[in-house]
Amino acid sequence: MSDHGCLNLCWALALLDGLVAGGMRHLVLSPGSRSTPLVLAAQRQAALTVTPVLDERSAAFFALGVARASGRPVGLLCTSGSALAHWFPAVIEASESGIPLVLLSADRPPELRGWGANQTIDQTRFFGVHVRAFHDPGPPEAGPAASKLMRALGRRAAAESLGDWPGPVHLNLPFREPLVPGPDCVAESTSGTVEPLDIQVQAPATRISAALPRLAGRGLICGGPGDWTADGADALWQLAARLGVPVLCDPLSGLRFGSASSHRLTHYDSLLRHPATAAALKPDWVLRFGRSPVSKTLLGWLADVPTILVDAGRSWSDPNHDVRFKIDADPAAFCAWFADANLKLGTPDPDWIARWLQAERRLERFAADYLDQAPWCEGHLIRDLIAQLPEGEGLLCANSMPIRQFDTWSGQRSQPLRIFGNRGASGIDGQTSTLAGLNAGGTPTTALLGDLSFLHDLSGLLELRALQRPCIVINNGGGRIFDYLPQHGLPGFERLWRTPMAVDLGTLAHTFGLAHRQVSDGAGFRQALAESMQAGQSAGLIEVVIDADLSRQIHRDFWQAVSRLRNDP
Amino acid sequence: MSDHGCLNLCWALALLDGLVAGGMRHLVLSPGSRSTPLVLAAQRQAALTVTPVLDERSAAFFALGVARASGRPVGLLCTSGSALAHWFPAVIEASESGIPLVLLSADRPPELRGWGANQTIDQTRFFGVHVRAFHDPGPPEAGPAASKLMRALGRRAAAESLGDWPGPVHLNLPFREPLVPGPDCVAESTSGTVEPLDIQVQAPATRISAALPRLAGRGLICGGPGDWTADGADALWQLAARLGVPVLCDPLSGLRFGSASSHRLTHYDSLLRHPATAAALKPDWVLRFGRSPVSKTLLGWLADVPTILVDAGRSWSDPNHDVRFKIDADPAAFCAWFADANLKLGTPDPDWIARWLQAERRLERFAADYLDQAPWCEGHLIRDLIAQLPEGEGLLCANSMPIRQFDTWSGQRSQPLRIFGNRGASGIDGQTSTLAGLNAGGTPTTALLGDLSFLHDLSGLLELRALQRPCIVINNGGGRIFDYLPQHGLPGFERLWRTPMAVDLGTLAHTFGLAHRQVSDGAGFRQALAESMQAGQSAGLIEVVIDADLSRQIHRDFWQAVSRLRNDP
Repeated sequence: MSDHGCLNLCWALALLDGLVAGGMRHLVLSPGSRSTPLVLAAQRQAALTVTPVLDERSAAFFALGVARASGRPVGLLCTSGSALAHWFPAVIEASESGIPLVLLSADRPPELRGWGANQTIDQTRFFGVHVRAFHDPGPPEAGPAASKLMRALGRRAAAESLGDWPGPVHLNLPFREPLVPGPDCVAESTSGTVEPLDIQVQAPATRISAALPRLAGRGLICGGPGDWTADGADALWQLAARLGVPVLCDPLSGLRFGSASSHRLTHYDSLLRHPATAAALKPDWVLRFGRSPVSKTLLGWLADVPTILVDAGRSWSDPNHDVRFKIDADPAAFCAWFADANLKLGTPDPDWIARWLQAERRLERFAADYLDQAPWCEGHLIRDLIAQLPEGEGLLCANSMPIRQFDTWSGQRSQPLRIFGNRGASGIDGQTSTLAGLNAGGTPTTALLGDLSFLHDLSGLLELRALQRPCIVINNGGGRIFDYLPQHGLPGFERLWRTPMAVDLGTLAHTFGLAHRQVSDGAGFRQALAESMQAGQSAGLIEVVIDADLSRQIHRDFWQAVSRLRNDP
Repeated sequence: MSDHGCLNLCWALALLDGLVAGGMRHLVLSPGSRSTPLVLAAQRQAALTVTPVLDERSAAFFALGVARASGRPVGLLCTSGSALAHWFPAVIEASESGIPLVLLSADRPPELRGWGANQTIDQTRFFGVHVRAFHDPGPPEAGPAASKLMRALGRRAAAESLGDWPGPVHLNLPFREPLVPGPDCVAESTSGTVEPLDIQVQAPATRISAALPRLAGRGLICGGPGDWTADGADALWQLAARLGVPVLCDPLSGLRFGSASSHRLTHYDSLLRHPATAAALKPDWVLRFGRSPVSKTLLGWLADVPTILVDAGRSWSDPNHDVRFKIDADPAAFCAWFADANLKLGTPDPDWIARWLQAERRLERFAADYLDQAPWCEGHLIRDLIAQLPEGEGLLCANSMPIRQFDTWSGQRSQPLRIFGNRGASGIDGQTSTLAGLNAGGTPTTALLGDLSFLHDLSGLLELRALQRPCIVINNGGGRIFDYLPQHGLPGFERLWRTPMAVDLGTLAHTFGLAHRQVSDGAGFRQALAESMQAGQSAGLIEVVIDADLSRQIHRDFWQAVSRLRNDP
């Protein structure tokens, strides 16, 4: 082929054919020149939605959101140079959380790498251990074998991103100039005829059957952060009923909302602050699904309890170092298999679940009564939010304070909700971009963020304009989680730890074309939420002004009151 | 030591003692908990200025600016997790440009790494080949040997960042809880008594003396991006005079402004668009100092010309693959050594320099005449800027269009100016943060940015409030460099390449507390520049509205007129 621009395009088309066959439906790109062949190829893929995002960091968190919401591999495309480095925070989150991303970095050809050429850095193996796979197929070549390779590479990269350890996959793609084909170039997608690649997943090994019964006594199930289907959750509830144990449902497990079960517990973080209850209900073993729970109280309390970890990924989530059995299987598949195999676990004790449920109900009532008489705070807001969010929609909960307060106050409900959180690396980064991506991924999603998380991802505000679900920002004057840590009150505390930002959120919203509603009480919040979710309009920002010192007092008083409750369970 | 918080602090203090002894005077930190021992230690270092910046990406570009302006190693500090990933774009720029940064990432202790603990990722060797050195000294230990190690590590890290190949150095620093010392902790800095570390730099090998004379014929000197002192520049001018060759001064060489020399050329990018001149003045050899020049015209014209590359760093800047001699030495030291050794290079030809200077003066006049009759454009703006910037101050010139237009129009002046550009990776990223850092580093610096560069680094706007030099933004509706590339006019061009942003810069400036002046002609610009530079006030933003299509036409007409000039040199 004498038209090198045409060769570049055909090569890029073949790769996208493979990626589309592998399930990719969305490509997020940041503008650049070297990436042009892939942009031209994406324009020729009817199956692909293409979203341009200027800031590569924002683009990557946007893609993360789309992939979280859709479960499909999402493509990211950028030009050569430092551009791909901006992806790194979202790549880490995707790696830790097991989210399928396909990273397509355009590059200069090998003859320019390492020779001081413009916008040329060493992009090979750039993401180190933080990607599942890295491929560098070299510059485009002509011929059917080359097209076959690129289609196969696309299918493979998509499959690797979705495999038994989902996560990001990096393809570094060098292109030689010219990057734009001549007028006679004929290049068409064949994605409709490319067969997807199936990867065979191993069934859980049967030798576990012999090992499990060694755990005797009373246990509990910990539903850690994960993504359960309704059927999967039903299988879990049946397992809990068979074993006669409670299920402590992490806020990011998705198990707090949807198909009801009497075994579902959500108040353990408060419950375990009551010393007698914590002592009386201490289990002999734990069956945990997914990553470690958000609750530090729970995690600390579980230290030294023998643990069975069931997780689809190859991650090794065991900060207490208590895992005795590690089962690399899909949690729902494990539940079904456990039932089919008619396995036993622990020693039956009918009194055990009864005591748990009694303690849970009592704490639930106490918390409700406490909120009824307390000044308005995040607890009320979260209860209102849970009550008002439409069935099956999503909530993105930021790290630091929001997810912890959500953990304390969310309770449960029978209508499903999807709760999203970037809890893999638990950064305060990328929240507004992730929110935009979740909505673009097909799940209408509201966000609950702190002011610092919100301001850490200013670029994401450029993507919020069309959103029909609000971004709720708790404005309490900086990083209030430090108010709960030993750093509180140190010299320079305000400037070096809490770091409040002198930015008016109303003006900021206006700048980015977002509606802005400021509230500071329950009635105001409920009205703002209802207004902002009215069909067809852009929802914008709900700024919730919170007196952080008062909030801290309310929470401290609550936990103290819990710790002093009479009558052990 | 039974107070582990105190041990952490003493350990951190010893490290900072070493870093301060090694020349560090500025630490830029982003808020976090795990990094607390180093924050506490920094508060006890009288020699350190501490700047908190919320967004780690912005913090890193800020630090890059401080280091560029001050020439000292600048510290960066962040907490564990994805935080350090945000540093990566600035780390790449620092590595490519040879800027000394000391990256201090707090980490969880080894027993939590890889076990799914919160905010814990694999931070070891995180920056791969993009740092000069990586150190992981493990968690703090007690005793004088441990303190001695940390002081030595601090001195070593500072020295490595400043060594014969300056650049970023990464220290990963795990801390165990508690992170805050008890009330009885006694921990004091001993930085005043720590001796700095001297690294012996090798003198240029004398065997070069024999090799150089093999280059015969007429040559030229290319002053690439670099940082010349006034004495160094004088040595260069003497070298040029001795050799009888012109010095083509890159806009980022710093050589266009300051001590005058008749051998100084700045109009080569235009000059070489005249085919007969380009052919007549083609040299037999090139002596280049520093990285490749900004001008693509120059670089293309120099292809296949045997080149001597003199660079302090170990980078290998030779995209044309023409370097015959590579001399790893400080350019100014090389010039002095060359004179002392009384070396010869090339074949003397008195006519050669005369023809160059004649062509330069002719183009200079033609360009001035052309601008006089052309509608107002970036060329006029740059000339006004060069005329008005105070002696010895700085100008940060963004990549993409601004640096290229600066290359075309800057000319020269006898009063010195420092021209800064993140040209290592040539990204459009981190510009506003770099600007804030340059000013914090001791050089009052004005910026010339495009609208996309400006909007790519929104977080940096939080750091501009106190600046007494303006940020000039050429608002021409997106990435206009694509207007000059083959992508121009492709279907979807506006949305996928040029990507104009729908943000009003006046509102944006107001949001971040910045003064805003919008101008669209020369008188307006000169007045806005003068007003914004009045002593003691915050300078804010100067938005320059440019009609991009008209500007493109003016530049095309200019180059065409140059190419058709009669009378070869």
